[in-house]
Amino acid sequence: MSATLELLKDLIGRESVTPKDEGCQDVLAARLAPLGFNEERLNFADTQNIWLRRGDAKPLFVFLGHTDVVPTGPLEAWQSPPFEPTIRGGRLYGRGAADMKGSIAAFTTALERFLTKHPDHEGSIAVMMTSDEEGIATHGVVKVVEVLEARNEKIDWCLVGEPSSDKKIGDVIRVGRRGSLCAKLTVAGIQGHVAYPELAENPIHAFAPALKELTEEVWDKGNAFFPPTSLQVSNIHSGTGAENIIPGSVEVLFNLRFCTELDEETIKQRTQAILDRHGLNYAIQWRLSGNPFLTSKGRLIDAAHEAIKTVTGYDTHDDTGGGTSDGRFIAPTGAEVIELGPLNESIHKVNENVGLQDLETLSAIYEQLLIKLLA
Amino acid sequence: MSATLELLKDLIGRESVTPKDEGCQDVLAARLAPLGFNEERLNFADTQNIWLRRGDAKPLFVFLGHTDVVPTGPLEAWQSPPFEPTIRGGRLYGRGAADMKGSIAAFTTALERFLTKHPDHEGSIAVMMTSDEEGIATHGVVKVVEVLEARNEKIDWCLVGEPSSDKKIGDVIRVGRRGSLCAKLTVAGIQGHVAYPELAENPIHAFAPALKELTEEVWDKGNAFFPPTSLQVSNIHSGTGAENIIPGSVEVLFNLRFCTELDEETIKQRTQAILDRHGLNYAIQWRLSGNPFLTSKGRLIDAAHEAIKTVTGYDTHDDTGGGTSDGRFIAPTGAEVIELGPLNESIHKVNENVGLQDLETLSAIYEQLLIKLLA
Repeated sequence: MSATLELLKDLIGRESVTPKDEGCQDVLAARLAPLGFNEERLNFADTQNIWLRRGDAKPLFVFLGHTDVVPTGPLEAWQSPPFEPTIRGGRLYGRGAADMKGSIAAFTTALERFLTKHPDHEGSIAVMMTSDEEGIATHGVVKVVEVLEARNEKIDWCLVGEPSSDKKIGDVIRVGRRGSLCAKLTVAGIQGHVAYPELAENPIHAFAPALKELTEEVWDKGNAFFPPTSLQVSNIHSGTGAENIIPGSVEVLFNLRFCTELDEETIKQRTQAILDRHGLNYAIQWRLSGNPFLTSKGRLIDAAHEAIKTVTGYDTHDDTGGGTSDGRFIAPTGAEVIELGPLNESIHKVNENVGLQDLETLSAIYEQLLIKLLA
Repeated sequence: MSATLELLKDLIGRESVTPKDEGCQDVLAARLAPLGFNEERLNFADTQNIWLRRGDAKPLFVFLGHTDVVPTGPLEAWQSPPFEPTIRGGRLYGRGAADMKGSIAAFTTALERFLTKHPDHEGSIAVMMTSDEEGIATHGVVKVVEVLEARNEKIDWCLVGEPSSDKKIGDVIRVGRRGSLCAKLTVAGIQGHVAYPELAENPIHAFAPALKELTEEVWDKGNAFFPPTSLQVSNIHSGTGAENIIPGSVEVLFNLRFCTELDEETIKQRTQAILDRHGLNYAIQWRLSGNPFLTSKGRLIDAAHEAIKTVTGYDTHDDTGGGTSDGRFIAPTGAEVIELGPLNESIHKVNENVGLQDLETLSAIYEQLLIKLLA
């Protein structure tokens, strides 16, 4: 059994459903200590975070990951128990195999090989782990970054082990993510009887033209790295079920996935301009989940492309799709940030898995990346 | 105590919450038998109906009413028990005082006075009562009319005792009602994640332009008797509460109150043309509550105006507002139909009441109407 597979099986065996860690970070700390990594625990509330750093020279390369996993979903739908790593048909099955204990194992063994051959490499290396990436993420990476920033400890390059790959390992890396902004809108009218509309103000009717405009608005045209900003209404509710009552209000939830052409304030202003233009009596609550971030170019991206090409022979594609990730907390510090990890096809589903060969390829890519950047 | 008030107190004391009659129709039958009315019971399912007719000459004048009342609502909000008729400040309080046991009592005593003075009047007179006007109205007047039609028993003039008056007795009579058509519309899309709108089809977005058009449509301009047809959306629901899910469908309830310029089929066609023009994937269920009806002119309206003027000295206003009534079942037979009864301010509310003087005035108007038409 390969060292990577052995470590991964150990990690999957630990039921670290978010925000639990179940000793995963202890395993890593014990494994990296002999290689010269200093250990710092930065736990906040129910979340365990660890910062393992080797050396203090610049530039600083960081591997960012999370030891927590999403819940299993229905156990009876798993072909083998989610916390008993099981090999079938050349793949390892278990919760966290792809998101992202596989990346953690692959990076750990890559580090071991790299440091054995290049103990006196340039710069320095750190590993940052949290146990609250799959949850609300308020006591994880965001807090660790605050600590680092407070003592002016700067990250130059950050590799996030999120499952970025599409069809084969390394075919896609993520170089940014869109921002996400949620709104809860309430449009008020005056309740009444459908037979006497002149005595009421139907909020659905009042809102209809604004709804049309909001859904048809061209927010931007995107750019070379991002698709156009998209608004999606996820919920609209008005009326109590009674057929003869004009309701008193309508409640709407919508979300914008926005690119680097826009910012939060501009979106709010443009939205409210549309609502105001239609003379609506409304209240709106906004919640920013994350700003967009982008590493458009730099040494990290170049090195990732070269490493993938060296190991696999094929070219990789830079992408900014999907949901948000902990990279959103690192990017604002000025670091270059990319995500590179296993295939994302099975993540968050039952029977999550990673290919055994993919695991070794990923570890080889990580090792090559370290060589290109620091050897 | 006046004969009208005495009869009304007897009727209010009976807890005839729809579809119960609680002996009200027995009281009427016993009261009208000595005047020469023949009694016919036409009960269907849980509903009691009675047809009392005196003579068989044409033209036939019918007084239409209902002995059932709506539920009391919160008892603690009543100043006196709803089924204990109580006089305060010149008004009689009790459930059904205005809708419409007051009209029944007023018409009964009007008949007694009229027939004493004019036993050999022209034409003939009938009284039709149901105990299911306030409920679903499927076994009431609609069924009695079927029986009459089957034996070719034709009504010429129908006075419905519904509370038509606004500020003072007889200031408004209803000469028709709008139609009411309900629709339940489901627009289908494809569920997905808000981060990947290109893989989904948001049904709220698809429906928005059609919603705007439906609410802005000018269905007609009304006419001399009716306000313009009005569409009101009473309910719109889509989404499960999750902020990141594009919902799979949106469900909408709407109602049209339509005038005699439109018919059911035209409304359906025009609505579906709007939905089709926007290429929606939809299903729609229609339910007709009632077609519009109108008595635009005729001997009955003229006589009502004259009777009100004779008794009160003021002019009356013809109106077609409000909800629907049992008149909708009589009008299609070709009869002239009007509604004339107490003030409608307190109906269906707690502390329902009728003015003692209004009750006597109403009875005098009914008597005058009989004189103008049949004496």
